Amino acid sequence: MHIECNKNNLINAINIVLKAVTTRSTMEILSCILLVADREGFRLIGNDLKLSIETSNIESEVYEKGSVAIDAKLFSDIIRNLPTEYVSIKVDDNFNSTITSGKSVFKIKGLDGEQFPKPEALNRNIGETEIGSLSLKNMIKQTIFSVAVEDNRPILTGELLKFDENELHIVAIDGYRVSWRKSPVEYSSYTELVVPAKTLNEICRLLPDDDEVRVKIIFSSMHIMFIFDKCTVVSRLLDGDYLNYENLFSSESPLELTVNTEELLTALSRATIISDNNKKTEITLTIGDRFMNINTNTSIGTLNEDVAINIEKGEDLVIRFNARYLIDVLNAVDEEYVKLHFNTNKSPCIATGVTGDSFKYLVLPINPRG
Amino acid sequence: MHIECNKNNLINAINIVLKAVTTRSTMEILSCILLVADREGFRLIGNDLKLSIETSNIESEVYEKGSVAIDAKLFSDIIRNLPTEYVSIKVDDNFNSTITSGKSVFKIKGLDGEQFPKPEALNRNIGETEIGSLSLKNMIKQTIFSVAVEDNRPILTGELLKFDENELHIVAIDGYRVSWRKSPVEYSSYTELVVPAKTLNEICRLLPDDDEVRVKIIFSSMHIMFIFDKCTVVSRLLDGDYLNYENLFSSESPLELTVNTEELLTALSRATIISDNNKKTEITLTIGDRFMNINTNTSIGTLNEDVAINIEKGEDLVIRFNARYLIDVLNAVDEEYVKLHFNTNKSPCIATGVTGDSFKYLVLPINPRG
Repeated sequence: MHIECNKNNLINAINIVLKAVTTRSTMEILSCILLVADREGFRLIGNDLKLSIETSNIESEVYEKGSVAIDAKLFSDIIRNLPTEYVSIKVDDNFNSTITSGKSVFKIKGLDGEQFPKPEALNRNIGETEIGSLSLKNMIKQTIFSVAVEDNRPILTGELLKFDENELHIVAIDGYRVSWRKSPVEYSSYTELVVPAKTLNEICRLLPDDDEVRVKIIFSSMHIMFIFDKCTVVSRLLDGDYLNYENLFSSESPLELTVNTEELLTALSRATIISDNNKKTEITLTIGDRFMNINTNTSIGTLNEDVAINIEKGEDLVIRFNARYLIDVLNAVDEEYVKLHFNTNKSPCIATGVTGDSFKYLVLPINPRG
Repeated sequence: MHIECNKNNLINAINIVLKAVTTRSTMEILSCILLVADREGFRLIGNDLKLSIETSNIESEVYEKGSVAIDAKLFSDIIRNLPTEYVSIKVDDNFNSTITSGKSVFKIKGLDGEQFPKPEALNRNIGETEIGSLSLKNMIKQTIFSVAVEDNRPILTGELLKFDENELHIVAIDGYRVSWRKSPVEYSSYTELVVPAKTLNEICRLLPDDDEVRVKIIFSSMHIMFIFDKCTVVSRLLDGDYLNYENLFSSESPLELTVNTEELLTALSRATIISDNNKKTEITLTIGDRFMNINTNTSIGTLNEDVAINIEKGEDLVIRFNARYLIDVLNAVDEEYVKLHFNTNKSPCIATGVTGDSFKYLVLPINPRG
């Protein structure tokens, strides 16, 4: 193999595929980046066997076809530190790789590219659609915080992507809250896919903040593929049925109020400062006519704070929450005001937009004392 | 105690004194910030018994005098998260402290301010002078990397500040290299002080990048005090005699060359990429007529690179170094070209400015094989 390419393009490409390189495997080759030069051009591939990322967005010239797998960290460190914009990579039959730039000549040992696991090909597709990059990124970011971390129910460590009547729903559930966002998309068949959170986190980091960039999504019964900007990401799907979450949102809400998202968020953040341990900050919300009082009382101290609210319907309520769960939800609300729906002090709080129904969040309260 | 003050001023002041707060002591009060309100105004103090920092640069109103010690992390977290620009701090006789800002009311428990160790007063001064803030900061930054880390010779864990004939010399020595910078200063008595590296690191972080700000330096036989921008930093001095370093620089240098600082620095940095372990990268410099060849050969691979040089006098030399030591020196050279002086392949390399004598660095080579 012999190629020449632009250094900055190559650094960008390395940064992209690095997300699918693992150093935790016993297979040495999975800690490598695969370099491929063929008639389609020059491209890089990372593959940790759950997720593969491939990118060909590199200005390059192929002089001799071939492939080699090079330790990802070493390759990345070398390329980043080269002295000029031009990089030549030449690999002999024993995978000895010579990387030259200006007066700098590195010689390192690579591995046989043929031994590198190929990304999944997705032969039997069951559907495909496309969506704006920024829309997809936001939907993921604004739900993924409530994916279950522990995997005693492995299906909940992924997010549900549900296609239904030209809408894409993305849902994440852990034991204490539900996040649900939807967005229009051209795909009318009913399809449910559960995508691992790790895949979606990496996708989020790669997607540009631009809806002009269209992300093509192709799925089979076992895999999902995202294609954008000369990048191809292929991930396994999680196996099993997702929870039925829709009926969780169907209960009545005799008390409804609107509140400034930022004001409530910063007040709750202050409450976490005096939590006894960093994970759980118990707060008491006392909802009155014009204010919601937030109270925390720990061994470290107390915080008392009033936040202005507008009651839409219903009466006073005293209810306790883990402040972190409400904070996560409010961080994901991208509107100035949010509507909160309450029933009893044992029932969940549901957050929705003041108008529209593009999101719904549900948070369980802490059971009342005594 | 009862004061009101500006939140952002207070945050800046906290950031300053935090550098002298320690959580590693068994004395709980040393993990606190001391708040003092007296006729001089409102000020904060941190003191880890080796280093104390005090600042009064806070727009404030004192309503009731007093003092209280509050856990530094808690105080910092609370103040940073307050909702408005105005902060009221009220402390009762049991040191219960109420921090109010807008509709937010925190109550936390403080400790008796009288129990907090007072900063040293420096009664018997032996001298004082002043120097521009940026000059002092640069001299420290450009030498402190070669302070000894291990303290089997505790005196070398500090830097020598030597005042001699209206010049300030700053010197740092570990077992492998010497860094020596000097700058004019108005102080003619001969004085040697050895200041702990920790003190100088903290001073560096606090000093503004501006020679218009004058730093007043006052010293006694046991302590040194730096005063600038309404901040007072007091540190213990290290006890003992510093090494005689001047004769290390007096040997002959039959070979002298100049080289572009940045070119040599980046080439050496590339060499470290393929080091077997991250601490030591052995390189061989082959000095020829017009180029210096840099060669590294490790189990990971090889790097070969030529850097253009200009020989001032002398002949070819092959000499080996730990690349990191040369990199540290070149990072501290703030001139486009640097002059390197060599004797034999067992003698140190000395780096100086091409013109002027404001700095001298010395690096020992690796002993030749065999």
